[in-house]
Amino acid sequence: MLPLGGLGEIGKNMTVVEYEGRIVVVDTGLMFPTPDQLGVDLVLPDFTYLRERAEDIEAIVLTHGHEDHVGALPFVLRQLDRTPPIYGGPLTTAMVRSKLDEHHLRDVEVTDVKAGEKFDAGPFAVELVKMTHSIPDAFAVALKCELGTTLLTGDYKFDQTPVDGVPADVSRLAELGREGLLLLCGDSTNADRPGMSPSESGVGPRLEETFSRCSGRIVVTSFASNIHRVQQVVDAASALGRKVSLVGRSMRKNTNIGRSLGHIQIPEGMLVGPKELQDFPDEKVVVISTGSQGEPLSALRRMAHGDHPNVSLHGGDTVIFSATPIPGNERAVNETIDRIFHLGADVITTRDAPIHASGHGYAEELKLMVNLTKPRYVLPMHGDYKRLRLHSDLAKAVGVPPRNVFRGENGLPLEITESGAGFAAREQAGLVFVDGVDVGAPEDIALRDRRMLSADGIFIIVATVSEQDGHSVAPPEIIFRGVPFIDEGDKVVDELREAVDASLARSAKEEISEIDLIQGHLHDDLAEFVYNRLKKRPMVLPVVVEV
Amino acid sequence: MLPLGGLGEIGKNMTVVEYEGRIVVVDTGLMFPTPDQLGVDLVLPDFTYLRERAEDIEAIVLTHGHEDHVGALPFVLRQLDRTPPIYGGPLTTAMVRSKLDEHHLRDVEVTDVKAGEKFDAGPFAVELVKMTHSIPDAFAVALKCELGTTLLTGDYKFDQTPVDGVPADVSRLAELGREGLLLLCGDSTNADRPGMSPSESGVGPRLEETFSRCSGRIVVTSFASNIHRVQQVVDAASALGRKVSLVGRSMRKNTNIGRSLGHIQIPEGMLVGPKELQDFPDEKVVVISTGSQGEPLSALRRMAHGDHPNVSLHGGDTVIFSATPIPGNERAVNETIDRIFHLGADVITTRDAPIHASGHGYAEELKLMVNLTKPRYVLPMHGDYKRLRLHSDLAKAVGVPPRNVFRGENGLPLEITESGAGFAAREQAGLVFVDGVDVGAPEDIALRDRRMLSADGIFIIVATVSEQDGHSVAPPEIIFRGVPFIDEGDKVVDELREAVDASLARSAKEEISEIDLIQGHLHDDLAEFVYNRLKKRPMVLPVVVEV
Repeated sequence: MLPLGGLGEIGKNMTVVEYEGRIVVVDTGLMFPTPDQLGVDLVLPDFTYLRERAEDIEAIVLTHGHEDHVGALPFVLRQLDRTPPIYGGPLTTAMVRSKLDEHHLRDVEVTDVKAGEKFDAGPFAVELVKMTHSIPDAFAVALKCELGTTLLTGDYKFDQTPVDGVPADVSRLAELGREGLLLLCGDSTNADRPGMSPSESGVGPRLEETFSRCSGRIVVTSFASNIHRVQQVVDAASALGRKVSLVGRSMRKNTNIGRSLGHIQIPEGMLVGPKELQDFPDEKVVVISTGSQGEPLSALRRMAHGDHPNVSLHGGDTVIFSATPIPGNERAVNETIDRIFHLGADVITTRDAPIHASGHGYAEELKLMVNLTKPRYVLPMHGDYKRLRLHSDLAKAVGVPPRNVFRGENGLPLEITESGAGFAAREQAGLVFVDGVDVGAPEDIALRDRRMLSADGIFIIVATVSEQDGHSVAPPEIIFRGVPFIDEGDKVVDELREAVDASLARSAKEEISEIDLIQGHLHDDLAEFVYNRLKKRPMVLPVVVEV
Repeated sequence: MLPLGGLGEIGKNMTVVEYEGRIVVVDTGLMFPTPDQLGVDLVLPDFTYLRERAEDIEAIVLTHGHEDHVGALPFVLRQLDRTPPIYGGPLTTAMVRSKLDEHHLRDVEVTDVKAGEKFDAGPFAVELVKMTHSIPDAFAVALKCELGTTLLTGDYKFDQTPVDGVPADVSRLAELGREGLLLLCGDSTNADRPGMSPSESGVGPRLEETFSRCSGRIVVTSFASNIHRVQQVVDAASALGRKVSLVGRSMRKNTNIGRSLGHIQIPEGMLVGPKELQDFPDEKVVVISTGSQGEPLSALRRMAHGDHPNVSLHGGDTVIFSATPIPGNERAVNETIDRIFHLGADVITTRDAPIHASGHGYAEELKLMVNLTKPRYVLPMHGDYKRLRLHSDLAKAVGVPPRNVFRGENGLPLEITESGAGFAAREQAGLVFVDGVDVGAPEDIALRDRRMLSADGIFIIVATVSEQDGHSVAPPEIIFRGVPFIDEGDKVVDELREAVDASLARSAKEEISEIDLIQGHLHDDLAEFVYNRLKKRPMVLPVVVEV
């Protein structure tokens, strides 16, 4: 049991389960970069361990279709020298196939598995157990080998009244508990919330109530993958005689997949293209839009900036956030909301009405999971250190002996034998950046340079010196970028030129002829000069050309 | 009445009140930069208007000592060609004098004013009215001229049981109302919270309860300027027989100022220096620390990273956040909390116990203010567009005619005459950046360059060409910074060198000899090459040296 991602962080979930040298990988998730990971596009788990063990991988099993559980798959596959079989529920595999297609990975075998179905993967008998979450086809994975059964819950809640009418298979979970579960690896995301999470099906009536108080146009934003939420928005719109329009690429894509798999029903003639919106009176439409997290290029953000081709917000419009900000996105969401207020429209968020339900179970649900499955060992997953700790405390509270509850870290393998369980020697784990077309290590010097460039900019000095005596033979070129409040004609540039000449003269006088040394002196002299003048430390890059 | 800052934003509050050409400035605040304001140190209001009118400024009046109300003062003073008299409460002026001192502005006249005191400033009779807020000596400013009286509330709450026993002067506010208030400019910060804000003095007993459940060391973090909170932490520690230690520069500085003005009493022998902490058992100390906002160099952030010289956190310690994150700081605060959990310590926040009270009044208090002062006109201040709108709605709800409630913007003057009020032509307003020693406009190209550099890095190409025919006479130098995952020996660098030669050869063949043109071609050719290879758009800077 080796977690490669998702412990001590929220995102990039990936776990390796191993028995007698054979591996099943559960989930291959990604994370989005933090603001200090400048210019990075995506953050992936470090899968060095898998690359070296590609031959031993019997299967990759995906619990559900969210990016933090499947997003790294194309990158993992590209780095393995063979492609293991991939399994997941029908919606998961449909979303994954579309993703692999975008990455030009076309000949990958992806197998649909239904809830309750079992299949073999080397020494493991694998079974997917139906769970409820904020996306259909969310499964827990039970991996049975000779030593016992491990259950990885994936993301889940115990929704007693899910929108599609099919709750989590608590009966099978209880059966696993009666058979004797060896290890439970559970979702910790909401370990800090007391009680039970509200049911998704409670959101629909609240949306309808909220809609009924709006006299103008309604724009609802939510996660595009929350298929049941989209269904409930459609139902509420339908009840009030409004048309719906899907705005934003991923909203259209996911809704199409959801419709083709029967998860969404939209009555004939109710769906209106974004361009046709202008043909309907404001009070007759509901726009369903991406952008609930304030994402820079999302449809809603563009509306908020008065920059969307089909929807211009104005007084009388109501924008409804049927989602909460993921931690870290608060600023972007608040900015978007304030821009919408500035345009004169109204905004309703989850603070104003209960129009969202989390997809992750709260503390009582995590306890229920432990009580149902009666595991010998517990290793909380999917959470930052705070939530892993709180989840551990919950497991102990329902009777798991404290020594059997483990607080793991990415790269720390939990080894279980007949005689006990404990952490083994650390394996390589961490993060890997996707930046443009390349994938690489974060300790790459580029990021440190970017931080320096972004804070203070860069000075480039090109000096031309005589090959004979190292004297300057042409006025130095001074180029700067990202340095504030000075321009070409500025006095500081003239002074800098003089400083270059002085530094070169000093090197020449000391009979220094090696270019590296001359450049080194130039760098030190100019960096000091610049700091004294500007009290900033831009990067200083001298280039000496010998002629 | 010209707001230069604090409308449509939270921060940099600054308002110009003008009558017959004479000016009183109320507050000179700053803001901290957002993550996309790369490398910017501080954000100030644009005070061009004041620079041009320096001769007409009768006074600068400061409502209280928070940075978002006084922080821009040194920069304002440096840009005015004369220094107007400055007024504020005793704590405000003490903090401001220390700030001016750090900026080497020593000969500035700053006058202490007590609550209820009146003074003249040109055509205005000025009066400071005692309010309650999260810092002592917080005042509203009443400016009386022939036309009528304007009241700027500053930041306030109606705390009926403040820690120092002196509530807001509601009696004087009511009197102003009876005399007939012309214009009310009120704090909108908590216009979105229903009800009344809790009293600051309710925090102390909750802190003591929380402390009493901690068996090890306690670290409390709060705003260093929240003098009454520091007092309450000291009182709770004292009740439980613990010593206190002040950690963090601003915590020590503000507490010293607070003690010298009699706002904080610390019993003899109770205060322990950070270095002496090791001499006391964990259960006998309370550390009061800066860093409640997760600030990068703060004492608490350093503790969380195991990097503080005097306090190393460990299991058994409890860190208590007696503050909530200011919007935008959530990520930094959450990161700090999770690091503390990872070190094994416990964390208690305002989600776990009522150990914080906001310094800004909630909706019912804003309504009470309108009812007390009965203003003819209302112009909400200190809030983003959402809160300005909600504050407007509150004013209307208590009976101010909608046409008399104004939703302003920075730079939009509200002109009031005998016959009515309305917005006049827009004046210059906006923001100004402090970056190193310089102050300048945000439209400066540097920030755009920094954004480009921070996202994708830079390629610098130095080509040496013959003056005669423009042919390359030496291998081009290729230098790059902030470009990930390639190094000097990389194939892409060789290919880039070939692309430079090809571009130069093409220019030579076309008999292009002007350096600007050669550089232009180089830029276009290489930018395309780099994009095709890396799918990123680093800055491409060609430098052609002629020999």
